[in-house]
Amino acid sequence: MSSLLNGIAASNGIAIAKAYRLIEPELSTSKRTIEVPADEQARFRAAIETSKQELESIRDKAEKDLGADKAAIFEAHLLVLSDPELLTPIEDRIKTESINAEFALKETADMFVMMFEQMDNEYMRERAADIRDVTKRVLAHLLGVQIPNPSMIAEEVIVIAEDLTPSDTAQLNRQFVKGFTTDVGGRTSHSAIMARSMEIPAVVGTKAATAEIQNGDLVIVDGLTGVVHINPTPELVKRYEDKYTAYEAQKAEWAKLVNEPTISVDGKQVELVANIGTPKDITGVIQNGGEGVGLYRTEFLYMGRDQLPTEDEQFEAYKAVLEGLSGKPVVVRTLDIGGDKELPYLNLPKEMNPFLGHRAIRLCLEEQEIFRTQLRALLRASSFGNLKIMFPMIATLGEFRQAKAILEEEKQELLKNGVSVSDHIEVGIMVEIPSTAVMADTFAKEVDFFSIGTNDLIQYTMAADRMNEQVSYLYQPYNPAILRLVKMVVDAAHKEGKWAGMCGEMAGDEVAIPLLLGLGLDEFSMSATSILKARSLITKLSQSEMESLAVSVLAMDTNDAVKAAVEDAVAKFN
Amino acid sequence: MSSLLNGIAASNGIAIAKAYRLIEPELSTSKRTIEVPADEQARFRAAIETSKQELESIRDKAEKDLGADKAAIFEAHLLVLSDPELLTPIEDRIKTESINAEFALKETADMFVMMFEQMDNEYMRERAADIRDVTKRVLAHLLGVQIPNPSMIAEEVIVIAEDLTPSDTAQLNRQFVKGFTTDVGGRTSHSAIMARSMEIPAVVGTKAATAEIQNGDLVIVDGLTGVVHINPTPELVKRYEDKYTAYEAQKAEWAKLVNEPTISVDGKQVELVANIGTPKDITGVIQNGGEGVGLYRTEFLYMGRDQLPTEDEQFEAYKAVLEGLSGKPVVVRTLDIGGDKELPYLNLPKEMNPFLGHRAIRLCLEEQEIFRTQLRALLRASSFGNLKIMFPMIATLGEFRQAKAILEEEKQELLKNGVSVSDHIEVGIMVEIPSTAVMADTFAKEVDFFSIGTNDLIQYTMAADRMNEQVSYLYQPYNPAILRLVKMVVDAAHKEGKWAGMCGEMAGDEVAIPLLLGLGLDEFSMSATSILKARSLITKLSQSEMESLAVSVLAMDTNDAVKAAVEDAVAKFN
Repeated sequence: MSSLLNGIAASNGIAIAKAYRLIEPELSTSKRTIEVPADEQARFRAAIETSKQELESIRDKAEKDLGADKAAIFEAHLLVLSDPELLTPIEDRIKTESINAEFALKETADMFVMMFEQMDNEYMRERAADIRDVTKRVLAHLLGVQIPNPSMIAEEVIVIAEDLTPSDTAQLNRQFVKGFTTDVGGRTSHSAIMARSMEIPAVVGTKAATAEIQNGDLVIVDGLTGVVHINPTPELVKRYEDKYTAYEAQKAEWAKLVNEPTISVDGKQVELVANIGTPKDITGVIQNGGEGVGLYRTEFLYMGRDQLPTEDEQFEAYKAVLEGLSGKPVVVRTLDIGGDKELPYLNLPKEMNPFLGHRAIRLCLEEQEIFRTQLRALLRASSFGNLKIMFPMIATLGEFRQAKAILEEEKQELLKNGVSVSDHIEVGIMVEIPSTAVMADTFAKEVDFFSIGTNDLIQYTMAADRMNEQVSYLYQPYNPAILRLVKMVVDAAHKEGKWAGMCGEMAGDEVAIPLLLGLGLDEFSMSATSILKARSLITKLSQSEMESLAVSVLAMDTNDAVKAAVEDAVAKFN
Repeated sequence: MSSLLNGIAASNGIAIAKAYRLIEPELSTSKRTIEVPADEQARFRAAIETSKQELESIRDKAEKDLGADKAAIFEAHLLVLSDPELLTPIEDRIKTESINAEFALKETADMFVMMFEQMDNEYMRERAADIRDVTKRVLAHLLGVQIPNPSMIAEEVIVIAEDLTPSDTAQLNRQFVKGFTTDVGGRTSHSAIMARSMEIPAVVGTKAATAEIQNGDLVIVDGLTGVVHINPTPELVKRYEDKYTAYEAQKAEWAKLVNEPTISVDGKQVELVANIGTPKDITGVIQNGGEGVGLYRTEFLYMGRDQLPTEDEQFEAYKAVLEGLSGKPVVVRTLDIGGDKELPYLNLPKEMNPFLGHRAIRLCLEEQEIFRTQLRALLRASSFGNLKIMFPMIATLGEFRQAKAILEEEKQELLKNGVSVSDHIEVGIMVEIPSTAVMADTFAKEVDFFSIGTNDLIQYTMAADRMNEQVSYLYQPYNPAILRLVKMVVDAAHKEGKWAGMCGEMAGDEVAIPLLLGLGLDEFSMSATSILKARSLITKLSQSEMESLAVSVLAMDTNDAVKAAVEDAVAKFN
């Protein structure tokens, strides 16, 4: 029976393959009295042994296919399986209480998990997560049910999941995972961003994928339109194979633009650059025709570890990115921590509204040693390429002046000590707070550039938490209020001879791109995989016509009206 | 030894009186073995009895001085003291374990508190708070220490506290409490707002009031400048007595303006109205020369109870306010719940960023029965006065259109049933979200008026939680970004022949008032007690000069520069 699900197109492309359900099986268990505790203990030990072997082979495969860092989590799981502090009490309970192994395991592990979770210590909370994961695996063996091991996938599949966590996606093997579809999520959810970065077609937010799709069902994921077909008819498969071929041909066409500039039909040139998180992302930037890096999110350097990165560690990372881009511009954003991004080892106080709290530059101006260390690493790396430094979450000119003064102090100190520092470092700001957009004219006199961070700018301008599903209808990138703020920023920059870019999700969005071109944006920073498509689009548009379009939508009153007007206007260019 | 504390001037006026420390005493206790459990039980019962008598007299006094609703909390405490479920286990433990009453009480009460607090039920959590309060009282009697009973104050005092909670302030007797000072808080903290509404001079945020001031110290609270003097010299007392006399004379001068219009020296008339929370506040509005109500916060009708108010209860409250104002305008804000204001009985989900969450109109458009009930009550009350209805937290035109359509539906339904409804109800919105300020021109075509809610508008525009001390430096009412948004709103209203008011703290602020006059604001809504002072100020100003001032500050770059410019410009009018 062929059927269809509608969702959100999260990552472009077409995939056709068998379904692989990445879903936790039912593992509930109840207390049973057993006759021979020694046999039950043996059964428990056997399950531990099988789990160990399984984890070892998963670890080896992950290390081979995905790298040592992705495999580390399984190493941690193996340690749990050898820990007498966990295992001994379970065996004891089986014996003294004559109860089944499943129940003894569950009760004991739950107690440890609860204990560790309540500790005010991120490291111990992670141990709790490890124990929970491992317990599931052993329980599954005891109960004789299968748990999915995504890293062991060895044939082409489409992954079906409720949602994909970072650790799930880390285990997916690009070679076999042809696409995925989830029940929840939107275009800016973690799984969607990962899909684009891995260039895997994806449809998210289908609501019913896990309910409707069984293991082995043939599935088509259409990441271009947001549709999922289950057990399609041969005719439909044929149609999608054609669509796939056409899309591949289009990609091949786009690939020709890899070394081309991005120029509209009437001669306006813009810069298409990439958002990156680590030096490893550089390859993708170059392969996809990125003209530089518009946003290097340095917080990944600080995450997933127990202490702050040293100045030298940071220096090496920044140098690698600058050298890797061979003189192309690299905009590095200084530490943007707080809000939804925590650093456990900093022990920051819990806040009632973290998105309106003590984060990013606010934190850096107070915790100056953290900030100064990063700035020194950046300044030292500056002579290895074309570095631009960008401060996040600037709300007032006072903050910018203070941040820039600190940078200048560190620069003078380095120069005094004979360290070579580039003379041409541009210093700019993220525009992601409404006050800064409204005051862009005064900022433009003092900054070298603006980069509009739409993810936050939209959430503050609409006063709607972008992670909160109940107010997600207010996350409106085409709301004329947002476009007017963008215009204020671009106009203010140009009036002072500065450039204005954008590094939020919106910069790579097909509906937004024509408007942004019309509003005069100079630099578009997006997922590397969106660059060629964006270039292809812009080279077909007339900047002056988009300017007229932008003027007319700024007077419109709703997000939907703007979206319709753009789609209408762009249609004729295709 | 005379000494001095600097804090934040939270409520105008001068007070000189003895200090009364409203601070919890040390009530720690440890386990002791006792010889004769029966004696210890008797001692416990005696402490219960004394506590009961004390609570009864506090309740009676509160009922007489402050009203039955304020006394209700003590009724709840008395119930706890008669509850065998709590008392029996304590007496049992004294007997069976031969332990001291303090320890048995503490352990048993703590267990109940913990149990109730963990329940997912606000009613039970309030019972936990009652038990905690009562336990403190009984413990104090057992330990022979005194706990403060603010409602029993019978001489003129200045209250010294770390902070004042709503329940503390409810118990303060205006007759004897001449002023107060706290360690924490700012101009918009609860205690500061209460002080202004009770017309009690107050200095908050002194950091050290409770550390520096002892019971019985002579204290001067200067709510005009934010200074607190401890044990002042006779000369200083004399100087403050003179200052007090001068301030009273000034108030007498202001009082002459009570029935006057508010007209600038060059003939521009504006309207000064009051923010109120309950019908009881009307007296204060009229005594202080309010020309109406600019913000009736209806959420107080919904708070401090176990279920939603009925349509009739609401109708009576709205009717009382409309009749009390005898035809003067009354702007009623529909339910603004969520964020920092919770309604336990609605069981709203916890949000990660409640200030950016599902609150106010967002909630009302989803929970339509709550909204429709309020609208019906308002429509029914409309024929008893000059009602204007205002929707809070409007972010998009779509929301306004939907809310207005629901209002219209309810109106037609009432009319169909023969209920009389006023024909002249203006329908407007709060402007407290940046998108709405930026889009004010499109809103102005459809609303009857705007009222700018600066408390929220500032926090969203600066992306800084106004309750979070770590980012309080970003709560900048004079930041040109805020003033530019205010200008957009006022200009948009006037272009369409509508009026624009303001109902945030800023509308009553001495530095802001000249700017708001200059920006063309039509209506200023503030604490009733600020009205005469504001009227006195405005009648000395020239609107056209303030307009020039406003134009010049809009081009400035920081909050501080604007503040200095205004103070400089206004000085010459005094």
